[in-house]
Amino acid sequence: MPGSVGRRRAALLKKPVRPVDVTRVRGLGDLLKQFQSTSIQARNLGRCLEVWENALTDRKRPTILLGLSGPLIAAGLRKVLRDLVDWGVVDVVVSTGAVLYQDLYQSIGGRHWMGSPTADDLMLRELYLDRIYDTYVDELKFEETDRSIGRITDEFPRRPASSREYLGFLGARFPDPDSILATAARRGVPVFSPALIDSSIGIGLTLHYQANRGRKDRFILDAVRDNFELVQILAGSPRTGVIYIGGGTPKNWINDGIVMANYAFGREGEGHHYALQITTDVPHWGGLSGSTLDEAQSWGKISKTATRAMAHVEASIGLPLLAGALWNRRALWRPRPRLKFQWSEDQVRVRRGPT
Amino acid sequence: MPGSVGRRRAALLKKPVRPVDVTRVRGLGDLLKQFQSTSIQARNLGRCLEVWENALTDRKRPTILLGLSGPLIAAGLRKVLRDLVDWGVVDVVVSTGAVLYQDLYQSIGGRHWMGSPTADDLMLRELYLDRIYDTYVDELKFEETDRSIGRITDEFPRRPASSREYLGFLGARFPDPDSILATAARRGVPVFSPALIDSSIGIGLTLHYQANRGRKDRFILDAVRDNFELVQILAGSPRTGVIYIGGGTPKNWINDGIVMANYAFGREGEGHHYALQITTDVPHWGGLSGSTLDEAQSWGKISKTATRAMAHVEASIGLPLLAGALWNRRALWRPRPRLKFQWSEDQVRVRRGPT
Amino acid sequence: MPGSVGRRRAALLKKPVRPVDVTRVRGLGDLLKQFQSTSIQARNLGRCLEVWENALTDRKRPTILLGLSGPLIAAGLRKVLRDLVDWGVVDVVVSTGAVLYQDLYQSIGGRHWMGSPTADDLMLRELYLDRIYDTYVDELKFEETDRSIGRITDEFPRRPASSREYLGFLGARFPDPDSILATAARRGVPVFSPALIDSSIGIGLTLHYQANRGRKDRFILDAVRDNFELVQILAGSPRTGVIYIGGGTPKNWINDGIVMANYAFGREGEGHHYALQITTDVPHWGGLSGSTLDEAQSWGKISKTATRAMAHVEASIGLPLLAGALWNRRALWRPRPRLKFQWSEDQVRVRRGPT
Amino acid sequence: MPGSVGRRRAALLKKPVRPVDVTRVRGLGDLLKQFQSTSIQARNLGRCLEVWENALTDRKRPTILLGLSGPLIAAGLRKVLRDLVDWGVVDVVVSTGAVLYQDLYQSIGGRHWMGSPTADDLMLRELYLDRIYDTYVDELKFEETDRSIGRITDEFPRRPASSREYLGFLGARFPDPDSILATAARRGVPVFSPALIDSSIGIGLTLHYQANRGRKDRFILDAVRDNFELVQILAGSPRTGVIYIGGGTPKNWINDGIVMANYAFGREGEGHHYALQITTDVPHWGGLSGSTLDEAQSWGKISKTATRAMAHVEASIGLPLLAGALWNRRALWRPRPRLKFQWSEDQVRVRRGPT
Repeated sequence: MPGSVGRRRAALLKKPVRPVDVTRVRGLGDLLKQFQSTSIQARNLGRCLEVWENALTDRKRPTILLGLSGPLIAAGLRKVLRDLVDWGVVDVVVSTGAVLYQDLYQSIGGRHWMGSPTADDLMLRELYLDRIYDTYVDELKFEETDRSIGRITDEFPRRPASSREYLGFLGARFPDPDSILATAARRGVPVFSPALIDSSIGIGLTLHYQANRGRKDRFILDAVRDNFELVQILAGSPRTGVIYIGGGTPKNWINDGIVMANYAFGREGEGHHYALQITTDVPHWGGLSGSTLDEAQSWGKISKTATRAMAHVEASIGLPLLAGALWNRRALWRPRPRLKFQWSEDQVRVRRGPT
Repeated sequence: MPGSVGRRRAALLKKPVRPVDVTRVRGLGDLLKQFQSTSIQARNLGRCLEVWENALTDRKRPTILLGLSGPLIAAGLRKVLRDLVDWGVVDVVVSTGAVLYQDLYQSIGGRHWMGSPTADDLMLRELYLDRIYDTYVDELKFEETDRSIGRITDEFPRRPASSREYLGFLGARFPDPDSILATAARRGVPVFSPALIDSSIGIGLTLHYQANRGRKDRFILDAVRDNFELVQILAGSPRTGVIYIGGGTPKNWINDGIVMANYAFGREGEGHHYALQITTDVPHWGGLSGSTLDEAQSWGKISKTATRAMAHVEASIGLPLLAGALWNRRALWRPRPRLKFQWSEDQVRVRRGPT
Repeated sequence: MPGSVGRRRAALLKKPVRPVDVTRVRGLGDLLKQFQSTSIQARNLGRCLEVWENALTDRKRPTILLGLSGPLIAAGLRKVLRDLVDWGVVDVVVSTGAVLYQDLYQSIGGRHWMGSPTADDLMLRELYLDRIYDTYVDELKFEETDRSIGRITDEFPRRPASSREYLGFLGARFPDPDSILATAARRGVPVFSPALIDSSIGIGLTLHYQANRGRKDRFILDAVRDNFELVQILAGSPRTGVIYIGGGTPKNWINDGIVMANYAFGREGEGHHYALQITTDVPHWGGLSGSTLDEAQSWGKISKTATRAMAHVEASIGLPLLAGALWNRRALWRPRPRLKFQWSEDQVRVRRGPT
Repeated sequence: MPGSVGRRRAALLKKPVRPVDVTRVRGLGDLLKQFQSTSIQARNLGRCLEVWENALTDRKRPTILLGLSGPLIAAGLRKVLRDLVDWGVVDVVVSTGAVLYQDLYQSIGGRHWMGSPTADDLMLRELYLDRIYDTYVDELKFEETDRSIGRITDEFPRRPASSREYLGFLGARFPDPDSILATAARRGVPVFSPALIDSSIGIGLTLHYQANRGRKDRFILDAVRDNFELVQILAGSPRTGVIYIGGGTPKNWINDGIVMANYAFGREGEGHHYALQITTDVPHWGGLSGSTLDEAQSWGKISKTATRAMAHVEASIGLPLLAGALWNRRALWRPRPRLKFQWSEDQVRVRRGPT
């Protein structure tokens, strides 16, 4: 073997895989640190922690956006998500409507029940139970939730508004301490849902529309305003980081936001500086949910120099590991100043607030 | 073996698997008929054809809704999708914004180029090329597309409108015969995009919003109006069938439409009567994209008596097989009367038109 | 845009994606040629055809090895597989035991029956029916098959033998013209099963072992002899090509064969020259079934200059498309001289035979 | 709502999903207990723990078989696997050859190095580095490992033997305390590899075969003997439990063992009583690796009354969670008497040993 081969080998063989030793795991933070020296998806999950911690400890204080999709409340992640908002490890939330609807459903007393993925669906239909894989939800309580949302929407100002404004309103009106929306409202964390009409919240909104369509001064979900608000937040942030739980509309929209911001403000801005995703999708179907964070670099959505990681693990397992590790290791990133979003209609200024 | 066992066995063992014989395949229709007597996903794809043909030959003339998600234009499916609309085998289209944007990009001369999934994304970034898995698109032509959309949007009426109305407008203004939007506009097929802002069309709309936000009489994408229009179509149809290419917002929204229609019109209506999906997602992640059509029955979104099929195959392979088989076997369903949608602002009447 | 950027762009943008036109598909060969100018998995499947055709038309006449795994007989692929052997488009078969067992089960009259993936498995248990996803097989006929294999094994020479020798014997004794094993025996195509004991054929062999274990002169499945026979075939071939339907032991073993051949014959040989795989597995789990053909190049198992393609599609759909396309386009590769394997105990010489 | 509906609902709605609270996780045992009251794959993983613990605390003292496949050593699981054997929570190991080879490679000083899944494989080829997804192994050290295996095999008795006997021999000769094989040898835990020839151990065996093929008294890997040994263990166990890490040959062979045992010993025995699998495969491809444990019940491989669970999570994440939880909660199952396997050539008696 010529010396040059030896040197090139040595340059590649720097870090050995270190076997996980579960007899020495002192907590989830410790486990994920161990994962960082393993391989396959454990390593990727460990790197997701590293990316998140890098974003949290960056002295430029990046704005961190959390994208949510999938059956997260059914999966038992409501407390974890609420905690992430409460701890201040995310600054903006972008979610599917379904996640937020199910958050509200719990706020007014609905529950998710342990069921079976092989249940008889026609029997469930008769019993007014709806199945989410291995979980049942109560259609009667859904009706109550929809009616509640409908009633409360009547109190919302009769004018065009973004999903962020409307969701902030809902969060304030259903002040359940375990709620994601309520915690976000209390903490001043903006919550967007760019496809809000595609959810049971949309059902309530449809009824509201139907009842008010004759009026000139009705509440209109002014979808494009969401975009305008998002791009201001991105443009007003020294840096941005993104945390994607699943893919879907939230991932795509947050990523696209960079391109929109560049167009809208005539700048050639950088992409997101920190990016992590846990997903069950794969790159080779070509869709955006499973596309690599490298691919997003070709579009300029992720910065050329971004630290980034993608772990293929379902959120009900992956997210508690990440969140628990962050909590274990909170001395690292605490205290973190919160962002203060100063809204004036559709305009926003992003300020660094107190810790 | 007792006789009763023999009888119960005989009741289950009716149809043997018949091996595919590729030396006797006379076309795609023939291949998919052969698939119907095989197993695993070939059988499922064969059954998808059967479900679609059942919907097409149902004398009650169901309204067939097509849900589109994924990188379908990049995948080379633009002609297939345009044909489905042109042939009249679908009556309503619900799509992600990305599919429709890329349709427009091609209408103004943009192309998708064969590339590599292992390309150097930072190099592509420098060259203003954006990667979609193994395909490149031209960022410079994207800019031109966005500017064109922006300019033309100035001509759109300055008032709240649904995505359906706006997309009909775009389809009429970019009359490329190969275009999905243009063909739909010509054929009077409504096209919805419930998350339109989450796409490059949304970029154009954001610029438009920015330029017009001071005005009282501006164009507003009135998202909830989409819901109101959809539920009228569903409520006005004797029966409905759904074709899902992928999942995402289109699948969820069309399925949810049933629940909305029941609420909005106070009826306890049935779910969709025919349902087929080709997908790369799986049920056990619990998300809506991969959820079974049985699960949707527990929600009442799919009728208790629906014929339904779900095939796990990526659309670039699965859709040409289905569409080609429909075409081969067009004697079966032709002529099919088209639907006529009579719009009066946000109200619609669905009429059976000429064949 | 500087000129150098334009030139570099032009160098990358050579081949546009051409939309599939199903109204102009004249057969499966034509469809797969169209797929070659699309994207995502359709393109990959089209490239699989190209790789196979390249191997078939290479004037050095590569030895083509077919690796089989998965529920291929249940899936309705028995005729397709038998045809591939009969046409001479593969020269060596390596299979899981299960595929070959189910081939024999059909040779003695067993059938696969169309069933349901949501069947009641405890009820099937009572009825002596075994489920393979959506297909039922007959446990009573399995017993008959096992007994037949057992009886016939008594006629096999009482000495150590490879799986190849034993499977050739079975193929000759069950001369069903629709059988893979029988067709291979008739055509002189060697069939290996490196994990043969892990199958219902293994059950018959276990009974045979039990009945003969006292004897000195018993039939022993001499597993390592399979390796020795394989490496001779590889070493005796000017070039090799591999076709993997699924992954599993066949893929790994055929790939490893290159390394074994290099060791056993002291040469620094090249890897396989042509390689294609259709698979439902993915690279990011790190396993061999889903590993990329590029990864195999780092091991020297696939040649540095190999043409190779991997399509993510399940075999019941993907294999009929490939085989049908080969058949449509048979003028391209016919006549192809067959290989003649001259066996002398565990030694083999590979000769080019008549077409 | 009629009363009967209320009662039927109440019967289904017994256990609410309880959100995970990562601020109260005291260890992995606690986390997995929390997972048992959630949904989707976290619940399934929690149930895997429950099944394993049920097997460990069953007073009939089931024999627990561990099936191993996938890149487990590369993934950093060597210590975890060695611990499972050492703690006595598994009684028999069935593995792919690759896992065991890489165990030996580490025993003689080889390492797995952290690399990249997007490495340049042709460059790695030049540097004698082999890639396993995101990990590199050293081909030069592989050669040394192969030579070592070859040399030591010369000391193995010159007669037919099972993989279990040969692997026990290797485990004794490479007494690395961190080794799975060495720990198994020390603890008397049988290790089988029904497809041993399909691995780099098979390369060593091929060279040994080549050097000894003239001899009458050579070592023969007598594959069917593995089956005979396995069925005796199964038949000699009051009950059996199975733990599948991945699928592949080990899962299929252990499951098939039940059928073999019934045939070989003329009994109508039950299937495995406890069954758990963590896997990245899915049921709908129809293969054995991803097939449900219910499907195995139709074959009689899993008992009708088995407790069973299947979690879709990759092993590098899922296995440390399970093993760590078992360790945290060891007070539950300790002390557990070990099994004593009394071998007399190919015959074995299974005795309950001391704790």
